[in-house]
Amino acid sequence: MDPVLLEEQLHSRIPLSRQLGARVAEAGMDLVRLTAPLELNLNHRDTAFGGSLSSLAILAAWAWLYLASSSEGFHGRIVIQHGAMDYIAPVAGDFEAVCRRPGTAEWNEFRETLKRRKRARIELRAAIHSGGRVAATFAGRYVALDG
Amino acid sequence: MDPVLLEEQLHSRIPLSRQLGARVAEAGMDLVRLTAPLELNLNHRDTAFGGSLSSLAILAAWAWLYLASSSEGFHGRIVIQHGAMDYIAPVAGDFEAVCRRPGTAEWNEFRETLKRRKRARIELRAAIHSGGRVAATFAGRYVALDG
Repeated sequence: MDPVLLEEQLHSRIPLSRQLGARVAEAGMDLVRLTAPLELNLNHRDTAFGGSLSSLAILAAWAWLYLASSSEGFHGRIVIQHGAMDYIAPVAGDFEAVCRRPGTAEWNEFRETLKRRKRARIELRAAIHSGGRVAATFAGRYVALDG
Repeated sequence: MDPVLLEEQLHSRIPLSRQLGARVAEAGMDLVRLTAPLELNLNHRDTAFGGSLSSLAILAAWAWLYLASSSEGFHGRIVIQHGAMDYIAPVAGDFEAVCRRPGTAEWNEFRETLKRRKRARIELRAAIHSGGRVAATFAGRYVALDG
């Protein structure tokens, strides 16, 4: 998908994504990569606020599933059920969230369950990178519901 | 603490809290209660964005620990290490995050460890309420570091 188009969708449909300064750097079936500037996301220690890191990771995983399931002809709802974030290191600069496609077996099971039951869950992972290292990791459980 | 003062601190030190529309409704040793309007936090389904719920919960727990540890004379860093959020129901209106003081034994252990080792961890819980029900629950592990 055109990153510009996805970015417009994120900004118009999830206004906080604009406040985070979220930009879409890559948007494809292999991965979604979103970037954000430190400046809009500072905390009391002049590093990135944990809620901003969490929000960007949630958006990256949601966007990956949105693109991947759209390409399968799915146009229902995608909702987060659970999200867990490990904050590994302070983020002292601009940062990005990368969500990569899950394993083929997990993805195939998700697709088949969604077709059969009109509802399926999948666990997605994303990482926050900043300054050349992984600063946080995210695991989110999303559910897709047809109709 | 004066809720207005805490709110000013949040807005000036963590600018995203202002973008979320976070307001401090109650700020004390028993609980911190933050509110936010749906309007600034919409997602693609016209309910609240998961990242906004997560951010408000992270702020509420951080603010509680900040107030409680300040009252003990602690003025070091407070950092989130891990956060997990269960999204139970869609949030279709304004919402609030409530963090209550943990159990006395946990709090005492945290205080004593912090005094002895200049570093201590504590698990805090917060709940997102909207429309009279609990819409999400949060558990966060925070570390306080002296100096």
